Amino acid sequence: MSNKKQHHSALHEKPGISPQEIISPIAVAHIQKFRKMQPSPKQLIEGILAGNITVLSRAITLVESTNSDHLAKANEVINACLPHANKSIRIGITGVPGVGKSTFIEAFGKYLTSLGKKVAVLAVDPSSTISHGSILGDKTRMEELVKDENAFIRPSASGETLGGVARKTRETITLCEACGFDTIIIETVGVGQSETAVHSMVDFFLLLKISGAGDELQGIKRGIMEMADAIVINKADGDNIRKANLAKLEFNRALHLFPAKKSGWTPTTSTCSAITHEGISAVWKTIKQFLELTKVNHYFFEKRKEQNQYWMLETINEQLKLNFYNHPEIHQLLDSTKKAVSTDEISPFAAAQLLLETYFKK
Amino acid sequence: MSNKKQHHSALHEKPGISPQEIISPIAVAHIQKFRKMQPSPKQLIEGILAGNITVLSRAITLVESTNSDHLAKANEVINACLPHANKSIRIGITGVPGVGKSTFIEAFGKYLTSLGKKVAVLAVDPSSTISHGSILGDKTRMEELVKDENAFIRPSASGETLGGVARKTRETITLCEACGFDTIIIETVGVGQSETAVHSMVDFFLLLKISGAGDELQGIKRGIMEMADAIVINKADGDNIRKANLAKLEFNRALHLFPAKKSGWTPTTSTCSAITHEGISAVWKTIKQFLELTKVNHYFFEKRKEQNQYWMLETINEQLKLNFYNHPEIHQLLDSTKKAVSTDEISPFAAAQLLLETYFKK
Repeated sequence: MSNKKQHHSALHEKPGISPQEIISPIAVAHIQKFRKMQPSPKQLIEGILAGNITVLSRAITLVESTNSDHLAKANEVINACLPHANKSIRIGITGVPGVGKSTFIEAFGKYLTSLGKKVAVLAVDPSSTISHGSILGDKTRMEELVKDENAFIRPSASGETLGGVARKTRETITLCEACGFDTIIIETVGVGQSETAVHSMVDFFLLLKISGAGDELQGIKRGIMEMADAIVINKADGDNIRKANLAKLEFNRALHLFPAKKSGWTPTTSTCSAITHEGISAVWKTIKQFLELTKVNHYFFEKRKEQNQYWMLETINEQLKLNFYNHPEIHQLLDSTKKAVSTDEISPFAAAQLLLETYFKK
Repeated sequence: MSNKKQHHSALHEKPGISPQEIISPIAVAHIQKFRKMQPSPKQLIEGILAGNITVLSRAITLVESTNSDHLAKANEVINACLPHANKSIRIGITGVPGVGKSTFIEAFGKYLTSLGKKVAVLAVDPSSTISHGSILGDKTRMEELVKDENAFIRPSASGETLGGVARKTRETITLCEACGFDTIIIETVGVGQSETAVHSMVDFFLLLKISGAGDELQGIKRGIMEMADAIVINKADGDNIRKANLAKLEFNRALHLFPAKKSGWTPTTSTCSAITHEGISAVWKTIKQFLELTKVNHYFFEKRKEQNQYWMLETINEQLKLNFYNHPEIHQLLDSTKKAVSTDEISPFAAAQLLLETYFKK
């Protein structure tokens, strides 16, 4: 077991990859052969649709690759999976470090699998390239869920840009759904633009908070509270219950200062404890109510369509920028131009014009 | 006088353009000649630096032009004005229709000119192309300020895009500052992305609210409250004073749920009446305190540098998108591709890839 824990990195592929757990040498050889060979898109598609988690992991590795052959293969797999995806609920969970996201997801995920659901837990954390995964890194906090055969946990993809990480996560959702996962949880870290990215790939957005922490610990980026469909105050246990209830009231009051949501849904506030499990089932009840409302008023379906279009346009816009800023001449000119602009030697607009003329001249 | 009011449109150039107010026929001929001739960039620059408001208006008209010769001329004027700009305080004011922005700006602007300040009032309202100026359109509410020789009021530039309107407004700030205006007020409408644009061109952002209005009237876009450096509850007069004080407390409480600002400034809440003028001078006192703090901690200067760079990059990004989406082949393909994406026939990323290949092939 202790040996197994070392595998809980971004490269971990579960289950059944530890040779010592396999008795038959034939099975070992079979698995080793599979790991060495490059499965074809057809094999990947069949495996995913059959619910094979090992194949799913392989396909996700393709999605996360920077190799263009891999990406072409990944695109083929994703497009074949699309008709089988989409039958799920996608839940975004955010909160600053310290609010207990991992323990909450552990308790919430276990509750969902106990209801017969298949739960995939993904993450969007662009900082993971540098920090090697500040979230979903410490899997010891999800000890139970990791072992649950109806759960699939995949740490954040790494990437240079948030756009890259977001693309990979969004494609991973499609693969997980085609593989039979009906509840997708996407964790993010609550301090940057990653919330906007996650918000635009989920149906329901949950903000995790705690009471009695200093303001710095509650340092959720401005604007995130208004994205929330539910604010859940975690760690409502022991001496903390009274304070958590007060915090709940306060957030409730603050939420009322914001205008009605397009979904017709009124954001809720509640308390819970990932330790005593108090309030965990209520979170799921809230999400079910949200689904009932938004499927009847069609917001759910409209939003997914909009999200698809949003991601197409986002991808285009990001690629246009990459192409511009990686252009050798622009690359060379950019720093000096930025400096001239910041010291008011040239207006921002005239500077932009100069760079654009250089770019489009080619 | 009644004749003069009809001139208070986007094309109004003040002062001294009404021939009937001029006695000398020589002066009339001189002005008529000036209006017909196209002043050179040099003449415009000299006029602006000499504080000539008629010349300022002419230069702004160039900035707002879609003619490329005019824009080249405008760029020359702006770059020459840049070293003389920047010595000002730029204040953004937002609030939904009905909170009394115009009457507030009238009272606040008059107070500032009474202190010897030179006040320019601009607006960012991308909808004005359609609505022909929903804000700053009704100048009858700024009757006093319009007549004040130390005030300059210019309605929102029109434009196809927010980016276009924002560029024009930002360049107009430079011209106004070079012309000697030391206090720039930028009004916007409180319901859309225009707040983000205005927020990124001002030093201080003021959110105007009223008490006792239904939620729909308070329908400020999510996220705007957190941009605010001050929330001012207007119409705190008569029977409304008690309710305004309660609203002040409530907003104050809500503001404390947000994290500390990078500026080191704690947003304030106050009440005022544009009719009784109660609380108007306190708003200016707050802004002065903000300036003291942020000039000592250098936030003020850093933010302006960042804003310059931001506008350069924004302009580039907007132009890259325009170029892509106006490309004839893309234009032709976009609708069907969007549709395929929204019905899950193709993944958003594969669709983006197809369009990008078409674009860059050329």
